[in-house]
Amino acid sequence: MGFWKTWFSTSESTAASRTGAFEEMSADVMGNSSPSSDRIVFSTEREIDLYELEELCDAVGWSRRPLRKVKKAIEHSFLVATMWQVRGNQRRLIGFARATSDHAFNATIWDVVVHPDFQGKGLGKALMKYVLKKLRSEEISNVTLFADPHVVDFYRTMGFMADPEGIKGMFWYPH
Amino acid sequence: MGFWKTWFSTSESTAASRTGAFEEMSADVMGNSSPSSDRIVFSTEREIDLYELEELCDAVGWSRRPLRKVKKAIEHSFLVATMWQVRGNQRRLIGFARATSDHAFNATIWDVVVHPDFQGKGLGKALMKYVLKKLRSEEISNVTLFADPHVVDFYRTMGFMADPEGIKGMFWYPH
Ligand SMILES: CC(C)(COP(=O)(O)OP(=O)(O)OC[C@H]1O[C@@H](n2cnc3c(N)ncnc32)[C@H](O)[C@@H]1OP(=O)(O)O)[C@@H](O)C(=O)NCCC(=O)NCCS
Ligand SMILES: CC(C)(COP(=O)(O)OP(=O)(O)OC[C@H]1O[C@@H](n2cnc3c(N)ncnc32)[C@H](O)[C@@H]1OP(=O)(O)O)[C@@H](O)C(=O)NCCC(=O)NCCS
Repeated sequence: MGFWKTWFSTSESTAASRTGAFEEMSADVMGNSSPSSDRIVFSTEREIDLYELEELCDAVGWSRRPLRKVKKAIEHSFLVATMWQVRGNQRRLIGFARATSDHAFNATIWDVVVHPDFQGKGLGKALMKYVLKKLRSEEISNVTLFADPHVVDFYRTMGFMADPEGIKGMFWYPH
Repeated sequence: MGFWKTWFSTSESTAASRTGAFEEMSADVMGNSSPSSDRIVFSTEREIDLYELEELCDAVGWSRRPLRKVKKAIEHSFLVATMWQVRGNQRRLIGFARATSDHAFNATIWDVVVHPDFQGKGLGKALMKYVLKKLRSEEISNVTLFADPHVVDFYRTMGFMADPEGIKGMFWYPH
């Protein structure tokens, strides 16, 4: 919260360039349906209110996870991307994604989510583009993810390929 | 190299418990074909001779990667597992695997390799068991990997499942 206070108590553009973490997306993504006073903002800042994140994940029906572990996962992710609706001096967390990586060859994207109120407007795609831009800027050449069946086509529209050359995503659970 | 010198210049058991990184595997894995003087040793020590690792990867026909990036990837992997043949006071790198992780929920295993001279003896399985034991001890509950078509069955023998509940491994390459 301290971070947001700082951000809003100073000129936005100054704060954004100081932290280097905030970026505004082009206005056309929201289409004409969105009030012109709304802005959608992306960030790689990791100071996230874990309860706000939990609320977002609850909204899409994900099962709850211990906040202690969520905190640890965020700390040890290579990239954490958040998407915010900014209206006046209010902000609301409306999207999230993160990636693990070896910082050299590969990154794996996890926990991609857009709040139901904001789905189907191109924002999921915009969030993923933001993530891919960040990963590409770090020279990561192999970006992977594990897609639930109902979102395989969502990722396909962004250029992800399922099982390229027969490569299989595999899972192991402790027993 | 300094690490190995230390290891061999002191009593093995002392050094092993001091570093905490070395573990000997049970003798039965090599079967009866192996000379009784040989030992197979596992380690999570990251001080690896990158040229020796390159030689191992060359031996299975993997394309070369810049050593600078390999070094960075090893540094930023959550787990690095190596397998060594120890004969008298000689040691040889015969297996390698590493995993990225968020240190909380998931880990993804990359670059699993056993030297061709040592394949088909159960050592790949032993190396993977070692990796899984280490990941489980860190409370990682979701272990994933991307398997080339010819090794899907190798991972299946270890309990990995391909596309469970229709989850698809997907890839994106920069363009
Ligand atoms: C998946 C999710 C992130 C998509 O976000 P979104 O903002 O609704 O997606 P967009 O509006 O940006 O859609 C982008 C494109 O994907 C398509 N698309 C969106 N959701 C889709 C879905 N579930 N299945 C197939 N296609 C989908 C859109 O039609 C659009 O295609 P177009 O570019 O050809 O017009 C969002 O629906 C969500 O959070 N779902 C719940 C959580 C979840 O399942 N996450 C993925 C876990 S692996
Ligand atoms: C894949 C690899 C690590 C396996 O190591 P290995 O020491 O030969 O394997 P093991 O002897 O421990 O075999 C364990 C089990 O898997 C089976 N197996 C081994 N290699 C296999 C393969 N390529 N395809 C199918 N099954 C295989 C064995 O038959 C054995 O089965 P069992 O337990 O029922 O007897 C090794 O062959 C290798 O390094 N290959 C080249 C690199 C590579 O392709 N890595 C994987 C990249 S995704």
